[in-house]
Amino acid sequence: MSVPGLSINFATVRQLGDFGAIVDGCLKHGITAISPWREHIHAVGLDEAARIVKANGLTVTGVCRGGFFPAPDETGRRAAIDENLRCIDEAAALGADCLVMVVGGLPKGSKDIKGARAMVADGLAAILPHARAAGVPIAIEPLHPFYAADRACVNMLGQALDLCDALGDGIGVAIDVYHVWWDPDLDAEIARAGAGGRILAHHICDWLVPTVHVLNDRGMMGDGVIDLKRFRAMIEAAGFHGAQEVEIFSEVWGAKPGDEVLATCVERFRTAC
Amino acid sequence: MSVPGLSINFATVRQLGDFGAIVDGCLKHGITAISPWREHIHAVGLDEAARIVKANGLTVTGVCRGGFFPAPDETGRRAAIDENLRCIDEAAALGADCLVMVVGGLPKGSKDIKGARAMVADGLAAILPHARAAGVPIAIEPLHPFYAADRACVNMLGQALDLCDALGDGIGVAIDVYHVWWDPDLDAEIARAGAGGRILAHHICDWLVPTVHVLNDRGMMGDGVIDLKRFRAMIEAAGFHGAQEVEIFSEVWGAKPGDEVLATCVERFRTAC
Repeated sequence: MSVPGLSINFATVRQLGDFGAIVDGCLKHGITAISPWREHIHAVGLDEAARIVKANGLTVTGVCRGGFFPAPDETGRRAAIDENLRCIDEAAALGADCLVMVVGGLPKGSKDIKGARAMVADGLAAILPHARAAGVPIAIEPLHPFYAADRACVNMLGQALDLCDALGDGIGVAIDVYHVWWDPDLDAEIARAGAGGRILAHHICDWLVPTVHVLNDRGMMGDGVIDLKRFRAMIEAAGFHGAQEVEIFSEVWGAKPGDEVLATCVERFRTAC
Repeated sequence: MSVPGLSINFATVRQLGDFGAIVDGCLKHGITAISPWREHIHAVGLDEAARIVKANGLTVTGVCRGGFFPAPDETGRRAAIDENLRCIDEAAALGADCLVMVVGGLPKGSKDIKGARAMVADGLAAILPHARAAGVPIAIEPLHPFYAADRACVNMLGQALDLCDALGDGIGVAIDVYHVWWDPDLDAEIARAGAGGRILAHHICDWLVPTVHVLNDRGMMGDGVIDLKRFRAMIEAAGFHGAQEVEIFSEVWGAKPGDEVLATCVERFRTAC
């Protein structure tokens, strides 16, 4: 039985093994949409990853991830741009719906978040022509403000959309419920994103109460406080009908057998999302 | 040697002991502005706390804390309002500059953050007449979005100011650098707060990279990535010249002798803020 509309981010079932093993696990549960990380792609090689995708008719809802533009000096920023150009080529080879951007935080030693944000805008502008030529939409993922210093200084949907407006075509947003569920302007910004054709991905998981670890305590859908059905309705009303991609970083779920995690994802996708 | 412009929140030096012991510790370092928690007030009794404040000519930059308005039912919400009325009386008895509000998160079992926010607005409206009559300004403290579910569903300065605008006189904001430093609209919202006469308190600490604990890993000023001098300049340009109140929840600093913590606060206040 297939599960249309459900995608699995490889981070959710890292314990299954390599690219092929994770795909096999997904297929066993009828899941034909995936979102791999570059480390999974590199481990088997880009050609083999592309072959697996094509042979199984998979949808690649995103490649994780480009970004990390801010750096203390011009050499570092140039290196980041070059790395992002390679990310684009890999996403193109897999026919991915988008390349997800975790834009980066403060350069080491810096307290200048405005400066970091300017570096992000410059970096995105620098890679966008290549992304457009390659047919790879760039998806800025606003990350929870908790990660502003060390992972992403783009922290709100509206902020990401302002960037998109400044940058033009070929760029949009990956909306992860975990990062934005609390946003006081969420409804309006989702509608704005949809009106601009900017929604490129919809990531799901849940926010646990209490959240005990900073990085690895995301919840399975239905176990937390995010109103996922209402969220999905907003996303669909805004015109996005792509798959919902499960991305769960969790010590709890990472310690369970991958097959059990996938079975739970399917069940919760049907009942809680 | 006195340290004008520096206030110590009792949470920063809890290890010193009771209300009187913390005040003695502060006075030894020339600090004459304090911000006690209700548990410290209750432990010695309100009359004794007021006596200590008056006898030493202390400034009370805030009382921590009222709030926690959302509740699953009307009885719970009514009880929260009654408790807040008592908070106001205590803050009045101490002649506090403001009563700090940690407004509360989602009611148990709820996924309705909009509903929780409405309960907060209703609760604040219910207590405001008493606060005005008692001469106690109410200071909404927007908390970092990390706490949206379980502590405060008011998470941005602009959101708090919208509430103030809707509620009228006698209410403003406590601006804690830890909670709002990442806000893309920070400059504009601080200016807005100042223009409206809404800045009632300025709390300081720092954001560490990495931040390893969810609740108790705030940094001493100068040890993290917040541009505290720029922040202070914005606050002062907005017209607030009250003391900067050090509020550090930290397992690291909580394990050091209180006297050492206070000495460090004074030194960092002079060099890093």
